[in-house]
Amino acid sequence: MPETRRADLAALDNTDPLRSFRAKFDLPDGVIYLDGNSLGCLPKATAARVSDVVTREWGQDLIRSWNKNDWINAPGRVGDKIADLIGANAGEVVVGDTTSINVFKCLSATLQLKSDRHILLSETGNFPTDAYMMQGLERLTNGRVEQRLVPPDAIFEALDDDIAVLLLTHTNYKSGRVRDMKAITATAHAKDIPVIWDLSHSCGAMPVHLNDCNADFAVGCGYKYLNGGPGAPAFLFAAKRHQEHVYPALSGWLGHKQPFAFDDFYNPAPGIDRFQCGTPGILGCAALEVGVDLMREADMEQIRAKSSALGALFIRLVNEQCEDFSFQLACPKNAEQRGSQVSFHHEEGYAIMQALIARGVIGDFRAPDILRFGFAPLYISYANIWDAVEILKEVMTSGEWDQEKFKQKAAVT
Amino acid sequence: MPETRRADLAALDNTDPLRSFRAKFDLPDGVIYLDGNSLGCLPKATAARVSDVVTREWGQDLIRSWNKNDWINAPGRVGDKIADLIGANAGEVVVGDTTSINVFKCLSATLQLKSDRHILLSETGNFPTDAYMMQGLERLTNGRVEQRLVPPDAIFEALDDDIAVLLLTHTNYKSGRVRDMKAITATAHAKDIPVIWDLSHSCGAMPVHLNDCNADFAVGCGYKYLNGGPGAPAFLFAAKRHQEHVYPALSGWLGHKQPFAFDDFYNPAPGIDRFQCGTPGILGCAALEVGVDLMREADMEQIRAKSSALGALFIRLVNEQCEDFSFQLACPKNAEQRGSQVSFHHEEGYAIMQALIARGVIGDFRAPDILRFGFAPLYISYANIWDAVEILKEVMTSGEWDQEKFKQKAAVT
Repeated sequence: MPETRRADLAALDNTDPLRSFRAKFDLPDGVIYLDGNSLGCLPKATAARVSDVVTREWGQDLIRSWNKNDWINAPGRVGDKIADLIGANAGEVVVGDTTSINVFKCLSATLQLKSDRHILLSETGNFPTDAYMMQGLERLTNGRVEQRLVPPDAIFEALDDDIAVLLLTHTNYKSGRVRDMKAITATAHAKDIPVIWDLSHSCGAMPVHLNDCNADFAVGCGYKYLNGGPGAPAFLFAAKRHQEHVYPALSGWLGHKQPFAFDDFYNPAPGIDRFQCGTPGILGCAALEVGVDLMREADMEQIRAKSSALGALFIRLVNEQCEDFSFQLACPKNAEQRGSQVSFHHEEGYAIMQALIARGVIGDFRAPDILRFGFAPLYISYANIWDAVEILKEVMTSGEWDQEKFKQKAAVT
Repeated sequence: MPETRRADLAALDNTDPLRSFRAKFDLPDGVIYLDGNSLGCLPKATAARVSDVVTREWGQDLIRSWNKNDWINAPGRVGDKIADLIGANAGEVVVGDTTSINVFKCLSATLQLKSDRHILLSETGNFPTDAYMMQGLERLTNGRVEQRLVPPDAIFEALDDDIAVLLLTHTNYKSGRVRDMKAITATAHAKDIPVIWDLSHSCGAMPVHLNDCNADFAVGCGYKYLNGGPGAPAFLFAAKRHQEHVYPALSGWLGHKQPFAFDDFYNPAPGIDRFQCGTPGILGCAALEVGVDLMREADMEQIRAKSSALGALFIRLVNEQCEDFSFQLACPKNAEQRGSQVSFHHEEGYAIMQALIARGVIGDFRAPDILRFGFAPLYISYANIWDAVEILKEVMTSGEWDQEKFKQKAAVT
C-alpha cells in the first residue's frame, strides 16, 4: 500500500458524498471531535428551534401549545421519524424517558410475554445500565426473575428453556463490536426467546433493519449519533405484533387510552402510545427532532461506508505512525464487525487521553485501559483523522502524556 | 362587605410585596393566565440561559461540559435548591425523570422497607398517574402487592397492618383540597406505614415542611409553580434516614456508586444519588433551574398569603357577578384547606372554558364538569382576577359559551 499523505485525504474529502453535512453543524475551533458516539455535535438549526419553543411556544402560547404546536404528539412524531432510521414502521417507535427506563419497560414487557420463564439473559461487559435494570427487576420481583450474565461468546449456548428474554447491545459501547442481529434474533426465536436490542451505538451510525430481523423490542439513545443534545430523550421500539399483548409496568398517565378522562384505573392506549409514561420533556424532544431530521437527510449506506473507511484509516495510521508506543487494538479489525468507533488498549490510556484532549483531540477513556475514538461521518473528515493521529504521535513522542499523568497525580494527592 | 371596585384592586397590587416578580416573566399580551398550576409561565431569564446551554455548553464545550459546566451535578444541585422550598435538607432531593417515574421509585423503595406488607394505599380521585404506577407494580409483582383505593375521607380508617405504603397528593389536582401533611404522616407512622407525598400542586405555591412533618418520601413536578418549562424534569425527596436502606428498583447507571467504573453489577451510590437513573436531560434541567432560582427569591409565606387572597377574591366575585349562572364551588371555601386554585362545577363547563380561552382568560377543564383556575402569585395580580370575572360574566351573559358549544358539536359531527 503506498504511503498515505494528508493531501490524498483532503482530496477524498472533496469527493465525499456526505461532505455538505459538515457545514450544518456548529463545530468548535481547534477541536477534532472524536466523541460523537458519546455526545453528538450541535446542528446549526437546533439553537433557533429550541429558542422558538422557549419564547413562542412556551412563552406566548403556553398551555395551548399541547394542541396548537402539537406537543402532545411529539413523542410519536419523532418516534416515527426514528423508525425510518432503524428499519421499523410508523407506530412502532416512541420517544421519551431515558435508555435505562426504556430498557426496564422492554424487560417488563417481555416478562409478560414469557411469564413461565424466569431468566433475564445478557452478556458481561455490556453497557452496565442494561444489566443494572435487570438487577432492579430481580430485586423488585423478590427473585422471581433472575439475571444471568454470560461472556459475550457464550450467548448462543446459554439460550435454554429458562430464558424469558435476551438483552443485547447491537454495537458494544467499549469494543465497538457489532452483533449479527438477524442471526441472533432467529436463533433466540427458535427457542421461543424474545430479544431486546440496545441500539444506542448503532442508531444513526449504520443501517439497522429491525423488522427485517424480526426484532421484538429495541431501545436507543438520542444524544449520540442522532445529535439530540445532552441527555436527549431516548426511544423505544415495540414490534407491532407484541404491542397489544403488553400491559406496561411503568403505566403512566400519558400511556392511558384516555389520558384526559382522568380515570382511577389504567387502561393502556392502543399501540405504541402505551409505552409513554409521564409528561414528555418538550425542550429535549424539540432538540432531538432537529438532529433526527438532519440525520434523515443523509443516506445511511453512505454513512456506514464512510464510517468504516474512517475507522480503517485511523487504525492504519496509528499502526504506521505510533508503532513504537504499544497501542493494542481493542476493537474488531474487520470493518463489518466494527461500529463507528475504534478503541485501543494502553496501560497509560487515561493520561494519554487527557493529553490528547488538552491538544483538542477529543475522544474518551473507558476503564480500565481503553482509549475510545468515535467517528461521526456527518461531521468528521478524512483529514481530521490524519491530524488526530499526527497529534497522538506528538503527544507520545513529546512526553506530554507523561506530564498529564504527573498533573493528575498531583491533583489527587 | 362594601362592594369591591377595580380601582381598589389596582391599589392592592401597588402594595403587593410580590409585585416586582411580574416583570420577571414573559407574559403574552391579551391573556389572563390562570393555568400556572398546569404549565407555569416563562421566566425572562430562561431563554438566555437555555440558549447558552445549547450554543456554548453543548455546541462549543461538548462532552467536556459534564465537568466543565457541571452538568454531572445538575440533578443534585437543582435538587438542593428545591429542598429549600419544601422543608428538606441538602442531599435529600434529586431532580430527574418524570413525576410518574419518581412515584414508581418511591413506591418500590417503600416496598423494601415494608417487605412483609402488601397493600399500596391511595385515594380515589387522585391525579391518576399515581394510582396507575401502583397498578403497574401490582402486575409486575404478579399480585404480590396490591393496590387499594379508598374514598378521600376513608383514608384514616384504611390504615391497617396490611398497608405497605400510603401515597397521597398534598393538594388535589382537581378540587384543590390540601391535606394535613403533619397529622396524616403522624397517624400513618403510628401504624408503621411510610407515606409518599405528591407535591405537584403544592411545591412553589405554599410552604411545605417535609422534615418538620417527618415525611418519608415525596415527588413533585417541575413545570407547574416552579416554572421549569413544558415537561420539565420532576423531583424526588427521600428522607436521609431511609436512603441507605433502599436498593432502587430503577437502578440505572447514574445511580451507581462508581458510574464510570462500568462494573457489571449495580452498587448503589451513597445518599440521594442512588435515585438517579439514566442520563439527565440537561436542557430541561437548565430551564428548571432558572424557574427554581426565581422562586427562591420570593418569600413562600407571602406567596401563600397572596394565593389565598386571590382565590378568595375570585370566589367572591364569581358569586357576586355570576350568581345567575349556576356555578357550584368545587373546592374548599376555607383558604387554609385550599391550594392555589379554585374550581367550579358547571354542566356546560367544557364549552364555557373554551369560550373563556377564546377571550384570553386561560384556565382549564377537568372531566366531567370542572372549570379549574390557578393563581400563580408571582405573576397574577388582583386586577387580573377582576378582569377575568368580568369576562366570565360577559361570556355567560352574551351566550358566547353556547356558540362555543355549537362549534364544538359541529367539529365532532
